[in-house]
Amino acid sequence: MSSHTESRFAADVYGERLERAVELMRAAHLDALLITPGPDLRYLIGSSAQSFERLTCLVIPADGATPSVVIPKLELAALAGSAAGELGLSVLDWVDGVDPYQVVKSTLHAGSRIAVADAMPALHLIPLATSFSGLPVSATPVLRDLRMIKDAAEIDALRRAGAAIDRVHARMGEFLRAGRTEAQVAADITDAIVAEGHTGAEFVIVGSGPHGADPHHMVSDRVIEAGDVVVVDIGGPVDPGYFSDSTRTYVLGDPAPETAERCAVLEQAQAAAVAAARPGVTAESVDAAARDLLREAGFGDAFVHRTGHGIGLSVHEEPYIVAGNDLVLRPGMAFSIEPGIYFRGAWGARIEDIVIVTDDGCESVNARPHGLTVL
Amino acid sequence: MSSHTESRFAADVYGERLERAVELMRAAHLDALLITPGPDLRYLIGSSAQSFERLTCLVIPADGATPSVVIPKLELAALAGSAAGELGLSVLDWVDGVDPYQVVKSTLHAGSRIAVADAMPALHLIPLATSFSGLPVSATPVLRDLRMIKDAAEIDALRRAGAAIDRVHARMGEFLRAGRTEAQVAADITDAIVAEGHTGAEFVIVGSGPHGADPHHMVSDRVIEAGDVVVVDIGGPVDPGYFSDSTRTYVLGDPAPETAERCAVLEQAQAAAVAAARPGVTAESVDAAARDLLREAGFGDAFVHRTGHGIGLSVHEEPYIVAGNDLVLRPGMAFSIEPGIYFRGAWGARIEDIVIVTDDGCESVNARPHGLTVL
Repeated sequence: MSSHTESRFAADVYGERLERAVELMRAAHLDALLITPGPDLRYLIGSSAQSFERLTCLVIPADGATPSVVIPKLELAALAGSAAGELGLSVLDWVDGVDPYQVVKSTLHAGSRIAVADAMPALHLIPLATSFSGLPVSATPVLRDLRMIKDAAEIDALRRAGAAIDRVHARMGEFLRAGRTEAQVAADITDAIVAEGHTGAEFVIVGSGPHGADPHHMVSDRVIEAGDVVVVDIGGPVDPGYFSDSTRTYVLGDPAPETAERCAVLEQAQAAAVAAARPGVTAESVDAAARDLLREAGFGDAFVHRTGHGIGLSVHEEPYIVAGNDLVLRPGMAFSIEPGIYFRGAWGARIEDIVIVTDDGCESVNARPHGLTVL
Repeated sequence: MSSHTESRFAADVYGERLERAVELMRAAHLDALLITPGPDLRYLIGSSAQSFERLTCLVIPADGATPSVVIPKLELAALAGSAAGELGLSVLDWVDGVDPYQVVKSTLHAGSRIAVADAMPALHLIPLATSFSGLPVSATPVLRDLRMIKDAAEIDALRRAGAAIDRVHARMGEFLRAGRTEAQVAADITDAIVAEGHTGAEFVIVGSGPHGADPHHMVSDRVIEAGDVVVVDIGGPVDPGYFSDSTRTYVLGDPAPETAERCAVLEQAQAAAVAAARPGVTAESVDAAARDLLREAGFGDAFVHRTGHGIGLSVHEEPYIVAGNDLVLRPGMAFSIEPGIYFRGAWGARIEDIVIVTDDGCESVNARPHGLTVL
């Protein structure tokens, strides 16, 4: 459900972000950023406007001119809660019949080199590219350095999100019982995600028994049985838009010894990656810390995905904790550490915390016990 | 909340749609359609896969070769519920480290002229365009003729959606009372939308008093007062993904005579547009039917938006019922007819039905009383 209700930081936070974006854009030899609704727009001006078929676009020129918001006249109210007014941005509203791409173009010099938000749909990108006579580049290389490093207010929001999702996991015994379907459990979890302080539930994975062996399984009508191992991966946003994302693995009744042993190895792997995450090391080295431990224990083939993803105003964003990513970690980066082991047709397990890189290590925003939890 | 639970028509429905898409693509001198997750993908193969940062893309070549689905290996399970298997599509899965854009390119001839889904984000469009050495065009001109004309199964789904949202409006007296906030009312409506047969609530607008004068107001913490006129515009999807969208205007207690008169004119305008909608007339003529009546009554300036939008697997799609659109209506087209009048700072009203063009007129899928409803 969409809503124009806004929730944002003080306007000066966005003013500083816009200034930094201009600096980074100049360093990248770009003339303008074009930002349509999505996490980049929310990051830059605190607007959670939704994109419909009509163009809404923040235009940030590199020459220091005042940024503009091109927006359908009908949707002007969506800007009211954002920082656009306090920041003194130009508002260029347009009505049906006007070509909004020409409005964007009119704010910039001919031949401008533009970069666009990754979220911009083809619906708008194609006419903009045609209007600017060339394929734009992605704004992400410019915005990445800004969005990856969380400031104090963002870290506070991620901590609140982590505490809220921990409270949901703490109540799992109320929801997860033999005889109920995954979908029934998920419905209760969805309610609890909101009741514990999120503004919504973004995803609820309840992977019981063999379903736990599929890392991207969501929910189904499978009836959960006594003895099942169950992967529960859940999250949602808290104001102003920052996400929680935490996975714990449960078992209904005492686990088989082999299951307990394998989960203990996974717990060690997750802890090893958390221990490895600190400023100055690469993203891939954190992935390797979990992966090497699992490989040495004989579960290399059972860990079929990357170790983690950045998080903030998006559930998945940079930095990605994956082999091949030599990005060096810095304080303020926030990402998941979520190794898993998957045994096709049988069961799976995953443990996930969100961590924030500190000056000398990292802080986890999740504090629930990491081991296989018997319910 | 996303889910991999699929709901779709029989596979042969999608087989026919793919064949028609190939015919239309050839007529448009295109070599391939590239369709990322969104309503076009659901329309063509019955997959409601969600797009994350990893590329999922249906590739339909114009030369009659078997279409392919390029998809992250991790997300293969998302295809299981779709028609891809029964249709015998090629599945090209890829793992982290592989360039998925090169996988797409490998399925096509060099120099192929490609068209992409409007929903494709810049994140994928920019590397695909770079890979194909040129800006793609939109696939919508090709798919529009297919998606605009609903078949019997789609019409059945739209009727079920209409009946479900009518049941919610029928219960409005339970939810909408003086002393409650718009947000409280909206929360109850959200629950009722699901309880009455939708798979979720997509939007809930409760615009009370002066908020009703903003056509895009969603909800707020404003306390609804006795005497308020309240615009309630609500909808959501029913299986397999078709949307309801219906607006009625309520008043808490007897309305002022002027209010009642103005709402009666609006009711006439909405009925005039419904009466005008039939095969052979233009989309803009339906808009004009409502607009002319309101203008003649002195409310031309109060009707600030187009009369309607197409609906189906998207809430807003073609055909748009708007001045300047000379598209000729044909049987099977489905769209909203929703004139409104807005008095800034005071109140507003809107009446909206979804209609489907028949052989000699149109059928409304909504049957609740159209006039100002006193609660």
